[in-house]
Amino acid sequence: MGKEIPSRSEDYSLWYNELVKKADLAEHSDVRGCMVIKPYGYSIWEKMQQALDAMFKETGHLNAYFPLFVPKSLFEAEEKNAEGFAKECAIVTHYRLKNDPQNKGKLMVDPDAQLEEELVVRPTSEAIIWSTYKKWIQSYRDLPILVNQWANVVRWEMRTRLFLRTAEFLWQEGHTAHATADEAVKETVQMLEVYAEFAEKFMALPIIKGRKSEGERFPGAVDTYCIEAMMQDGKALQAGTSHFLGQNFANAFDVQFTNKEGKLDYVWGTSWGVSTRLMGALVMAHSDDDGLVLPPKLAPIHVVIVPIFKHEEELNKIAEKAKEITASLKKQGYTVKFDSRDTHKPGFKFAEWELKGVPVRLAIGPRDMENGTVEVARRDTKEKQVMKIDEVATKIPALLDEIQENIYNRALTFRTNLTTKVETYDEFKKVLDEKSGFVLAHWDGTPETEAAIKEETKATIRCIPLDAVEEAGKCIYSGKPSNKRVIFARAY
Amino acid sequence: MGKEIPSRSEDYSLWYNELVKKADLAEHSDVRGCMVIKPYGYSIWEKMQQALDAMFKETGHLNAYFPLFVPKSLFEAEEKNAEGFAKECAIVTHYRLKNDPQNKGKLMVDPDAQLEEELVVRPTSEAIIWSTYKKWIQSYRDLPILVNQWANVVRWEMRTRLFLRTAEFLWQEGHTAHATADEAVKETVQMLEVYAEFAEKFMALPIIKGRKSEGERFPGAVDTYCIEAMMQDGKALQAGTSHFLGQNFANAFDVQFTNKEGKLDYVWGTSWGVSTRLMGALVMAHSDDDGLVLPPKLAPIHVVIVPIFKHEEELNKIAEKAKEITASLKKQGYTVKFDSRDTHKPGFKFAEWELKGVPVRLAIGPRDMENGTVEVARRDTKEKQVMKIDEVATKIPALLDEIQENIYNRALTFRTNLTTKVETYDEFKKVLDEKSGFVLAHWDGTPETEAAIKEETKATIRCIPLDAVEEAGKCIYSGKPSNKRVIFARAY
Ligand SMILES: [Zn+2]
Ligand SMILES: [Zn+2]
Repeated sequence: MGKEIPSRSEDYSLWYNELVKKADLAEHSDVRGCMVIKPYGYSIWEKMQQALDAMFKETGHLNAYFPLFVPKSLFEAEEKNAEGFAKECAIVTHYRLKNDPQNKGKLMVDPDAQLEEELVVRPTSEAIIWSTYKKWIQSYRDLPILVNQWANVVRWEMRTRLFLRTAEFLWQEGHTAHATADEAVKETVQMLEVYAEFAEKFMALPIIKGRKSEGERFPGAVDTYCIEAMMQDGKALQAGTSHFLGQNFANAFDVQFTNKEGKLDYVWGTSWGVSTRLMGALVMAHSDDDGLVLPPKLAPIHVVIVPIFKHEEELNKIAEKAKEITASLKKQGYTVKFDSRDTHKPGFKFAEWELKGVPVRLAIGPRDMENGTVEVARRDTKEKQVMKIDEVATKIPALLDEIQENIYNRALTFRTNLTTKVETYDEFKKVLDEKSGFVLAHWDGTPETEAAIKEETKATIRCIPLDAVEEAGKCIYSGKPSNKRVIFARAY
Repeated sequence: MGKEIPSRSEDYSLWYNELVKKADLAEHSDVRGCMVIKPYGYSIWEKMQQALDAMFKETGHLNAYFPLFVPKSLFEAEEKNAEGFAKECAIVTHYRLKNDPQNKGKLMVDPDAQLEEELVVRPTSEAIIWSTYKKWIQSYRDLPILVNQWANVVRWEMRTRLFLRTAEFLWQEGHTAHATADEAVKETVQMLEVYAEFAEKFMALPIIKGRKSEGERFPGAVDTYCIEAMMQDGKALQAGTSHFLGQNFANAFDVQFTNKEGKLDYVWGTSWGVSTRLMGALVMAHSDDDGLVLPPKLAPIHVVIVPIFKHEEELNKIAEKAKEITASLKKQGYTVKFDSRDTHKPGFKFAEWELKGVPVRLAIGPRDMENGTVEVARRDTKEKQVMKIDEVATKIPALLDEIQENIYNRALTFRTNLTTKVETYDEFKKVLDEKSGFVLAHWDGTPETEAAIKEETKATIRCIPLDAVEEAGKCIYSGKPSNKRVIFARAY
């Protein structure tokens, strides 16, 4: 059927790339490092957006839109932020093309249309947003500002992979401003919790909440919180970050306010974001060698009905029954697809909808019609059962809930099995190489040790878990004292 | 209250600019020609998006996402399209900044990071999309492709105005591919109808459906359909366009398919779009000297409740009643805001919510509490009435429907009064200068006449109405024969 994908054990990386393309999620474009998100992939992203957007609004945030371009002088205002992104920025230098006199029918950049000040295509929007907040904030009465933006951003990555690392990607970026440090920290943690809830409830993705070490912090942040997930190859994937910015951007853009006591103070900030990278995480966490496994809460199609028929007469009868089933499920908020194509055989259709990760497949043939039954196959376990057609409307929703839960539990068990406590550096390296996964180890808290371990093993500190237990120990690398374990892993 | 705006009769243009800023819809950013869409403005845009997106999906379209950048070689492939946009393109030439050795703490474009091929920031996406469709289409079985994209685009306009003409704007662009010309034309017309329905039902904006003259066609289109609306200064505003692209882009990007007869043919295309320009149309069509007048179907807040109180005790009682009203309206899908601020007087609040265009205001004071009544003020007519609190849940939804209808009818009456049939060029010029509005006149169908009239009067042919009556006449400019009237107007 020309849609075969390699197995995970054969070549995990190739499995991922081929699956993303063959399941119609995304593909490479003619623009270096930029992807095309195809309709099926985009419909999953839309489900993610809807769920997140509702959660942002429930927590008091409103959406807004800020410019794509950041003038260089604004971009460089917050030094660490600028330094962090300067090496991967797309820069607009001109605003016009003209006919190329040397090449008939071709265009060239018009040298007379050079910008006085270059524009950076936003890699993140703190700079342009804080230069705007300066105009919005005078007094404590103007605070807090709780704003989110859904946008595209560009980071000129040299090595790109569909969804995981692309030059352009889609994301949301929340940017809030507060009168006190305490309130800003609370906001930072609240949004981390929102991300964690979204990952677990919608993506069926178990995550660990933690803080980044200094070396892994967002450029310009005082503190970076993150959620970390484990993929099926044992590697870690950072699924979302929430930053406490302190007064760094307020300082850089001179955003001061009169507080309740009538005194001028700098504003406290946060920013937080998740991106189309989540699509990559979703694929890599749950899918198998036959294709996507989508959690029902994010599946664009919940149920596919495949008719088994020889004559059109048979098809028509089945179609009528399918229509009833569809109506009863649609009423409950589910999306049902009836695949009545006469150009493909049932087996082909089964494989195609498995590839696309549709959680439940119903097959109805002439004998089912006689018996008033339907064959139900679940995508996650591949189990089949025969169900009375009358029961479909009540049992399928329950089955979808069960699938959602099972996918989560399976990923959690997987992560638990691949999480290892180690006491020595030898053990650490052995686990990384032979078992992979999350390694819980003591660390002396210094950037030097972190850098040395990264250099020698390619493992990084994914986070210092928020729920890390206080325990006396010794750094696996330096032997210096440590009071809690951090999570090391190789990562995407 | 510092929120005064000039009157329309004083200075229509200034009235518009100040209203957009003071009602918190949008403001200028630090990037030349780019605006910031503020949360209140963006929430109206979100309502527009939701309504349009649902209509696109009902007509079988799916969303996708294509790259922001278009390599120059792809951009120039469809010659007329390239020519049409070349003079207003933002061009990315470099992909890195570095520290400026001459200026400590400053950055400069890294001359070693020049792109081999320049990238155009998309002014529209036909080029990048058709270069992708080439990979998606082999056979008639791959057609039609019915895709839409919500995205930002950049056109380097020299004179910008908030929403109406900005360097960066938000829009949706549909791009479809078909096996036959007939099907593509049907799609083009269908989407024009979708836009017309949206404008009339949601924006309460009467529009005229028509086709553009050759001179006003989209660059690269065979035929451009449009909806045209009239603003309160009598000027026309193009509110949406739908283009039949023929095989132009298929030719330029070599997109061929095997048809049912087994022969190779070029694919037929359409594209269609509306943008944040609609926000400008919404403001200019309905608002008045006191602020926005929003049609209820696009209002982020449908009802505001302002308590009239002296003591907190009074406020608490009113708050309880407001809570009941809010609950009963929320259940029916309406958004209610209770403005309990004790920092501002009722009069200030009334003015503020009028400025923001909230369709219905309820005021409740101690006497209302005694009488079980509430004062209801509608934004569109400023009429007030006293209503039993018990009746609010049933009467307010009806009132909101009435307001929606009234705003539409008012705009329609306005347009009817400012639409004039003329027979001579002298009459034409007199109407344009003294009355303004739409002028229905005979035209000989030549680009030369169109250009001469534009040059002499600044009026353009807005469209050749789809429902234009066949009638013999003479061109107002050349005296040559004509068989129907077209609509001339000065336009945004
Ligand atoms: Zn690849
Ligand atoms: Zn202005």
